[in-house]
Amino acid sequence: MYNIKSRYSVVQGGSCLLPGAWRNQFGSDLWLWAPGEGFSKNSPTSLRGEFRSAVAIHSGSGAGNETRSLMGSSGRYPGSPFTFSVIWRSGAVTVWVGQCFVNGISKEVLVTSWLLKEMAKSQKDNWKTTRIGNDAFQRIV
Amino acid sequence: MYNIKSRYSVVQGGSCLLPGAWRNQFGSDLWLWAPGEGFSKNSPTSLRGEFRSAVAIHSGSGAGNETRSLMGSSGRYPGSPFTFSVIWRSGAVTVWVGQCFVNGISKEVLVTSWLLKEMAKSQKDNWKTTRIGNDAFQRIV
Amino acid sequence: MYNIKSRYSVVQGGSCLLPGAWRNQFGSDLWLWAPGEGFSKNSPTSLRGEFRSAVAIHSGSGAGNETRSLMGSSGRYPGSPFTFSVIWRSGAVTVWVGQCFVNGISKEVLVTSWLLKEMAKSQKDNWKTTRIGNDAFQRIV
Amino acid sequence: MYNIKSRYSVVQGGSCLLPGAWRNQFGSDLWLWAPGEGFSKNSPTSLRGEFRSAVAIHSGSGAGNETRSLMGSSGRYPGSPFTFSVIWRSGAVTVWVGQCFVNGISKEVLVTSWLLKEMAKSQKDNWKTTRIGNDAFQRIV
Repeated sequence: MYNIKSRYSVVQGGSCLLPGAWRNQFGSDLWLWAPGEGFSKNSPTSLRGEFRSAVAIHSGSGAGNETRSLMGSSGRYPGSPFTFSVIWRSGAVTVWVGQCFVNGISKEVLVTSWLLKEMAKSQKDNWKTTRIGNDAFQRIV
Repeated sequence: MYNIKSRYSVVQGGSCLLPGAWRNQFGSDLWLWAPGEGFSKNSPTSLRGEFRSAVAIHSGSGAGNETRSLMGSSGRYPGSPFTFSVIWRSGAVTVWVGQCFVNGISKEVLVTSWLLKEMAKSQKDNWKTTRIGNDAFQRIV
Repeated sequence: MYNIKSRYSVVQGGSCLLPGAWRNQFGSDLWLWAPGEGFSKNSPTSLRGEFRSAVAIHSGSGAGNETRSLMGSSGRYPGSPFTFSVIWRSGAVTVWVGQCFVNGISKEVLVTSWLLKEMAKSQKDNWKTTRIGNDAFQRIV
Repeated sequence: MYNIKSRYSVVQGGSCLLPGAWRNQFGSDLWLWAPGEGFSKNSPTSLRGEFRSAVAIHSGSGAGNETRSLMGSSGRYPGSPFTFSVIWRSGAVTVWVGQCFVNGISKEVLVTSWLLKEMAKSQKDNWKTTRIGNDAFQRIV
């Protein structure tokens, strides 16, 4: 999909710069890059990337390997809170907010909370269309 | 700030197109536009805008009238779930997800849930840095 | 079901004592009483009651009028945060947390957030079993 | 505090009965018992216990080792969703909802989401008084 290694080879381990490739506890993959800003020590304001989901909300939906582009943003410094979001093919939306932490010997983790909003057919049904959860992503590249 | 009226004059009431100006239950104002797509019946994928907050999380922070740019996205059709996010001056992030509904005689409302993530000083303190809530926005322009 | 009027006749309007009957924006009804403590000015620690839901999570489930007993607790003073929970027939659980406020001329409202946890068939499916939302209840008795 | 070992000696590892002692990722301890029902294969409807928090929301509050009684409930079968709640000395309330899963060789884990509601001084400030997070508890006794 992307030549991640060549794109992100300047990212040093443990520095909590967001660009790179990350995997969560379900095996879903997250690619992040910072189109406007390069890989300076000051992390990007604008994030772009892709999300490949290893899980599907409706088991009958065949999906489960849906790959979608994402957009997001973060504060200026490594370790600032960030957000990114995905519009799924169904029209549902997932948004993540989180923060990068370095565990032990330069092992980065993105600790995130998410909201998943599905399309409600009517306002009366809207109450049941928002799920909440949490993901932890570890850097794979 | 923006000449909202001229920008959005093509938006018909009650159609749940997102571009325009909206106000929530606290008096916070939201301006949304769709830079890439014009005001076609198919609503935008990419959203830009501004958010002027009428409330402040830390009462001593003076703020309460902070105005920030936002970015977001939505599905293709009027009424699709959408998301937008703001990075505050403090580095905290708010993300909203929601859906537009038309009440009664073409009165639009954006029913949203949000997460507000503040910067944690360390991973040990991260547990207490995510707030949750809900906003309803009504169109003002 | 209960003779609410006789049970709660000592509750004065606008005082944010929790015992009584409440209705939310969907028409779901909530009866609360304080078995251990009577209706003193200090609100109860332990709450009991019933919840009659006007909505159902699975539209095919026939339900929608399920009435279940609830248990909960609150701090000592009128206006303290409170919580109550319901175990549904399906085994799903809803928990509410909130606070009572008095609007205008002694009009009480319970402003609440809730989590609805459905049974996951396996830990792998658990991520999608928690919904979030908010309810506002107004006193009916 | 409690002679946990003698109280819970009949609980077999890996069976996802809730009574016993559990510890989360922060070192907070949870004791659960089922006053009305004994330790039958059908798990309790009513839960009682204690929660000793290893963390404090306001760092200046001295606390961090606050121990409080809890109450809760769960469905009838091992593995049913459950809830329990704590009223803190400050009047804030935490409610957990979750489900027990068995990992690998009879290692039980309580996977939970929680809401923490602090007291709002007024309805206008209520928007910022609800935090959200997640805890995983592993059995220690």
